[in-house]
Amino acid sequence: MSRQQRDALDAILRSAPRGEMRPTVEQQRSGFTAAVSRPAPQGVITRQTVLGGRPALELEPAAVSGPGRLLYLHGGGYVIGSPQTHAGMVGELARRAGLRAVSVDYRLAPEHPFPAAVDDGLAAYRDLLAAGIEPQDIVMAGDSAGGGLTIATLLAARQAGLPQPAAVAVFSPWGDLTLAGGSIRSKEGIDPIFIEADLRAYADLYLGAADRAHPLASPVFADLTGLPPLLVQVGANEVLLDDAVRLAGRAGADDVEVTLEIGPGLPHVFQHHYGRLDEADAALERAARFLTGHLAADHPTTGYLTAGHPAAGGSEPVR
Amino acid sequence: MSRQQRDALDAILRSAPRGEMRPTVEQQRSGFTAAVSRPAPQGVITRQTVLGGRPALELEPAAVSGPGRLLYLHGGGYVIGSPQTHAGMVGELARRAGLRAVSVDYRLAPEHPFPAAVDDGLAAYRDLLAAGIEPQDIVMAGDSAGGGLTIATLLAARQAGLPQPAAVAVFSPWGDLTLAGGSIRSKEGIDPIFIEADLRAYADLYLGAADRAHPLASPVFADLTGLPPLLVQVGANEVLLDDAVRLAGRAGADDVEVTLEIGPGLPHVFQHHYGRLDEADAALERAARFLTGHLAADHPTTGYLTAGHPAAGGSEPVR
Repeated sequence: MSRQQRDALDAILRSAPRGEMRPTVEQQRSGFTAAVSRPAPQGVITRQTVLGGRPALELEPAAVSGPGRLLYLHGGGYVIGSPQTHAGMVGELARRAGLRAVSVDYRLAPEHPFPAAVDDGLAAYRDLLAAGIEPQDIVMAGDSAGGGLTIATLLAARQAGLPQPAAVAVFSPWGDLTLAGGSIRSKEGIDPIFIEADLRAYADLYLGAADRAHPLASPVFADLTGLPPLLVQVGANEVLLDDAVRLAGRAGADDVEVTLEIGPGLPHVFQHHYGRLDEADAALERAARFLTGHLAADHPTTGYLTAGHPAAGGSEPVR
Repeated sequence: MSRQQRDALDAILRSAPRGEMRPTVEQQRSGFTAAVSRPAPQGVITRQTVLGGRPALELEPAAVSGPGRLLYLHGGGYVIGSPQTHAGMVGELARRAGLRAVSVDYRLAPEHPFPAAVDDGLAAYRDLLAAGIEPQDIVMAGDSAGGGLTIATLLAARQAGLPQPAAVAVFSPWGDLTLAGGSIRSKEGIDPIFIEADLRAYADLYLGAADRAHPLASPVFADLTGLPPLLVQVGANEVLLDDAVRLAGRAGADDVEVTLEIGPGLPHVFQHHYGRLDEADAALERAARFLTGHLAADHPTTGYLTAGHPAAGGSEPVR
């Protein structure tokens, strides 16, 4: 059954028209909104708010337990997407985790190039802390460019001397804007969504003349020491597969607790397809359990991975 | 607490005497037996048997559910170790999984160089099938060299036209006998057990003049298409860290369902230290759940990772 679901999804994704001319940024934004957006799930209340000086979407599931908070950064190549396009997936994650979520409308390129998005991510996190929410009650997540941005936000928080949140989950993270991953070539044609040129166009719009290997743009090249427990989920049918593998390997080498999950036959941010693709539901469920398992309020001595492992980011790096 | 456990373990491992002269193979074998061996846990009955023409140790937990069987291949650089040295850890895994286990005393180098160990692994698996055990009721596991050997056995089984088992878990697998992993150098001195020369000596004894990059010796270079769902666990304080990361990445790229777990501050095959290191118990528990979650008899439609994902290795490769 799931094999049929995956094949059907692959066919749908491949059927998207790919014109001779590159669409304008505005066309890409409206096309993405039409293609991806799903409403927040039933029982998840949404409301507009402001966080770190940016508009944001709050998502509150009916069953919320504890003070935990999920800070989410959406994907879209740093150029497209919004909390609205991701309300379905983020709402579904929040619902499964029983966590209040807030999804930030960070500034997009090319109007606001690097590091505007990182500044907005950091400002949002800082605002949560300023509101009195304990870092060990905060978890973060993001997908695609939002996954890379989530890691960059954690690095910026570390640099600013802020405590780390309790855990972080990233779906199909874009971690290398130099596009040096081997899967950029080896998965060309297998990936039903992206080819290298698409990613290069986004990187050009976001970075302009900035260094594509900057650790806040390409965290696979960063020192990730001190980051909280990290879950990385990725599909095998992705040119960005190696971004996920290298991010996990880099984080592990820097003494971060890491879980990497690679799902065969799955496309970029397959979690969007919950409710119609079994792997999407299962992945969101595991992500929800990973995040809540590391919250301080939830089982203080029996975390998701290790009993007694510090849930917050206060552990000193070993090296 | 766990941080103290990890530091204490690290100090103990570092205190092992390292003489000027390389110990003989016999000295290494007896030293390893003295240092590592733990008896099977209480309630796990052991008996000597024969599998694939080799001596083997059966481990039967008190609470066994279903027809599932765990085939285990111990570590020790293809030169040292035995089912006896690993009776504790394998018994603990079997107990947590509720599975009958059999741990094979495959032939060791230098008396029996490559591919003797692979031949014995394959013969053991073939014998289980010949005994009428269904492949979807079999799971495999191994640590260190036994982890690499476990993957090699699956590749040999594929080559022989045999069906794959339901799932496989490897702990700190040695997947690259060319020693090309970046962590061979970057984790030197951080790894409290191994330096490159130790591994090179084992590779020399096992391979002699054979190709160190042979896919059955160094599965990080193999085409892993068709392998069953794979769990890889590794410590961050390992020169073999990158073997685990590359094996996971390679398997994922070849459309194998993969979970990789990297544990900060942990040494090679830290699972040996269950009962005195929280991470070891937690890792064995997750491995047990991973393996049983993929058994056909256990929840046929709700596996560990994905509802509806085929538990057996019958799925055709996508490429």
